[in-house]
Amino acid sequence: MNESMSDKKKTVYKPKPISGFPEWLPEARMIELEWFSHIQKTFESYGFCSVETPSVEEIDVLTAKGEVDKEIYVLERLHKEENDSSEARLALHFDQTVPLARYVAQHFNDLIFPFKRYQIQRVWRGERPQAGRFREFYQCDIDVINIDQLPLHFDAEMPAIIWELLSGLPGMENETIQLRISNRKILLGILEDWDIKDPENITRAIDKIEKIGLTDVKTLITEAGLSESQANTILEIASIKTSKLNELSSLLDTIPSENENVKKGCNELIDVFEKLTHLPENAVIADLSIVRGLDYYTGTVYETVFIDDPNYGSICSGGRYDNLASGYINKNLPGVGISIGFSRLFSKLLDKGNFELSRKSPADILMVLPNQEQSDKAAQAARALRGRGYNVELYHAPQKLKKQLSYAERKGIPFVWFPPFEDGQEHEVKNMQTGQQSIADPNCWSPDKDKHKNEAA
Amino acid sequence: MNESMSDKKKTVYKPKPISGFPEWLPEARMIELEWFSHIQKTFESYGFCSVETPSVEEIDVLTAKGEVDKEIYVLERLHKEENDSSEARLALHFDQTVPLARYVAQHFNDLIFPFKRYQIQRVWRGERPQAGRFREFYQCDIDVINIDQLPLHFDAEMPAIIWELLSGLPGMENETIQLRISNRKILLGILEDWDIKDPENITRAIDKIEKIGLTDVKTLITEAGLSESQANTILEIASIKTSKLNELSSLLDTIPSENENVKKGCNELIDVFEKLTHLPENAVIADLSIVRGLDYYTGTVYETVFIDDPNYGSICSGGRYDNLASGYINKNLPGVGISIGFSRLFSKLLDKGNFELSRKSPADILMVLPNQEQSDKAAQAARALRGRGYNVELYHAPQKLKKQLSYAERKGIPFVWFPPFEDGQEHEVKNMQTGQQSIADPNCWSPDKDKHKNEAA
Repeated sequence: MNESMSDKKKTVYKPKPISGFPEWLPEARMIELEWFSHIQKTFESYGFCSVETPSVEEIDVLTAKGEVDKEIYVLERLHKEENDSSEARLALHFDQTVPLARYVAQHFNDLIFPFKRYQIQRVWRGERPQAGRFREFYQCDIDVINIDQLPLHFDAEMPAIIWELLSGLPGMENETIQLRISNRKILLGILEDWDIKDPENITRAIDKIEKIGLTDVKTLITEAGLSESQANTILEIASIKTSKLNELSSLLDTIPSENENVKKGCNELIDVFEKLTHLPENAVIADLSIVRGLDYYTGTVYETVFIDDPNYGSICSGGRYDNLASGYINKNLPGVGISIGFSRLFSKLLDKGNFELSRKSPADILMVLPNQEQSDKAAQAARALRGRGYNVELYHAPQKLKKQLSYAERKGIPFVWFPPFEDGQEHEVKNMQTGQQSIADPNCWSPDKDKHKNEAA
Repeated sequence: MNESMSDKKKTVYKPKPISGFPEWLPEARMIELEWFSHIQKTFESYGFCSVETPSVEEIDVLTAKGEVDKEIYVLERLHKEENDSSEARLALHFDQTVPLARYVAQHFNDLIFPFKRYQIQRVWRGERPQAGRFREFYQCDIDVINIDQLPLHFDAEMPAIIWELLSGLPGMENETIQLRISNRKILLGILEDWDIKDPENITRAIDKIEKIGLTDVKTLITEAGLSESQANTILEIASIKTSKLNELSSLLDTIPSENENVKKGCNELIDVFEKLTHLPENAVIADLSIVRGLDYYTGTVYETVFIDDPNYGSICSGGRYDNLASGYINKNLPGVGISIGFSRLFSKLLDKGNFELSRKSPADILMVLPNQEQSDKAAQAARALRGRGYNVELYHAPQKLKKQLSYAERKGIPFVWFPPFEDGQEHEVKNMQTGQQSIADPNCWSPDKDKHKNEAA
């Protein structure tokens, strides 16, 4: 190597994180994998199948609803031929609902309905990054789509799954969450009674009660056209909250309306609640202030909050919609779905220190390499233990024992295995947490057995 | 809904696949998930930790090596403010090696070396799509990086892992693969002896032996500056092939060179081979025609082929490189790594019909909903079975039994469970494959037990 090349080599470009694109160290990534595994297992235990769509959709598909085009990342080939307009313009998806709609329409004849799918993928939003907002993040969605009619059974299955899922995640042991459920038909029916032309203005304001308070919301909705007495009525209805089924019925009976939709909404809400009585008290609450901003929800709506920190906002939301794939297919496809804001939740708990981050390696056992002569024995023992389901790292060089043990300690590997250092010796294993060391056989050892032996000793 | 809206609704946009961006039906996706799980498990069983990097890197990081800029997808925000140059330009990564180099440099002080990581992510290449070429596809990489020196132990660990992994994938039962291993130091040392200025021209030609044949390669390398006798010599060396360790030593002894690098390369190759004797015969072969195109490989190189279909090309390739993160950090970080072209392999076997695609749902059991009165019992039984690790879909409406059974059949759900249709009855379960139906208890049933009962009956 000549001098100028060597000089050049020293000009280093120090890499830095890209704002809005999170990346974890191996010890946090291990927990993230546990989360994905738990989520997948829970979704599958209810019979949801996995779907994964490409990261991109055609730009016309993504912008069909016209609202979110500011947030979209469009792809351009760096060295695209000039004037080449032969290819459709592609952009990264910003949610998993638009891709699901396209998927169901495209593969309609190959799917069995009700179609129950989960989807765990990254989505992208080209927003200016802020604290707690990512540009690239994971969402975990479940949706059920059916043809023409979708039983209310599924509206009740969603919160049951989500409660089981969230409360079982590592790091959630000391967090208390609550699912808030309402039915949009109730408030929309009331506004229909009053002949309000733009009900979305009212529901959007009501959606802000937790954030800005009743007084400010009242100002907003009277400005939007409600009379003083209408405003009082609707805010009273929106303040209905209970986690008790019997209380819910009598509270809903106080709503002063004979509107068909109001009645339907109340009955649906009670029905969903009845199907959730197996959950712990306070796991779910009926809360009529929940309306969700998105105007495609037409019935049941969900939000999920930390009881201690409701202002953090919803970590898991969704609802029922009348027709998923209109615009793609001449079928009526009602659905209900819910979506976990995975990365936002994971990074919150990571920042809070809720995770045990001691393991930097998935290895259960570090196999010591005693010397070159016994290296075959060490490799054999490692293979035997792997065959029995253990993760085993075989140390890479016959270095001093102290160095090998320190490596296991720094990587957080819980057991160190000593194969025979010379012929005739036995295998031994050391529990790095207790410091106990005992004779072991790679063909039948287990961590419990080891623990048992130690206790017996 | 007024008429014009209804008309509008009928204007449907029929979605179509995007060329180069594969997407599977649920039954194929289930196998894909099995593959990911098997790959992750195998990598972790050798102590490799998971790393996931963002989908993007700064464009300057990706184009630093200057070769692949045609293939890069750059991101643009759809409604970016004019003249906003405050943000770094981002592009989708085209492999996992550049992101690994950036990751290791950025997190250097938080990592324990040797750093053994696996990475299973999508990568993107903005090429014109061709048969078998994707624009978005999964790669599964493992690499080991160390400071200053990296033991040859790892060069031997890579093929052992890959052989175990690939031969254990569902769908590979009737495929025979072989890992071809060489060491670049051998051919490069010979060319060094001969004072060849641009050895890459020669190695690139030798890389094509399988594709274009010896005669055409000979023409290429003589055009590139080798004499007739040099061409003969190097092609003779490149034709060394053996899967037997003892044969390998004697074949390498015939190489007419005293060059230090040649000797080092031969010793390394023998050493790697010695550490792979536990693999089945023909699982690995030393093949000196393997040189790999990429010029950053400096020692061991790997390719993996289907023995029946070598022209399909390598499904898993890699090698050793001297310095991963030069340009980012003033450290010498040698590494060795190998990468599985996941999507290419998966789609080949899918097209070939190697997968059993009968299951469209992960549910093990469909729980029949007999009638509204017994719906609680059905829900309870479903929860009990889920608690015991089974995936159970509770049917969504008390429809005719025939309809519920047909649903299970069409989704490929292997068991149908009948909770009591009235008080006092017992639970029963039907094996959809054998048609056998028997009394069962949700708190202790297992498929084996069911099978056993049937056999006993």
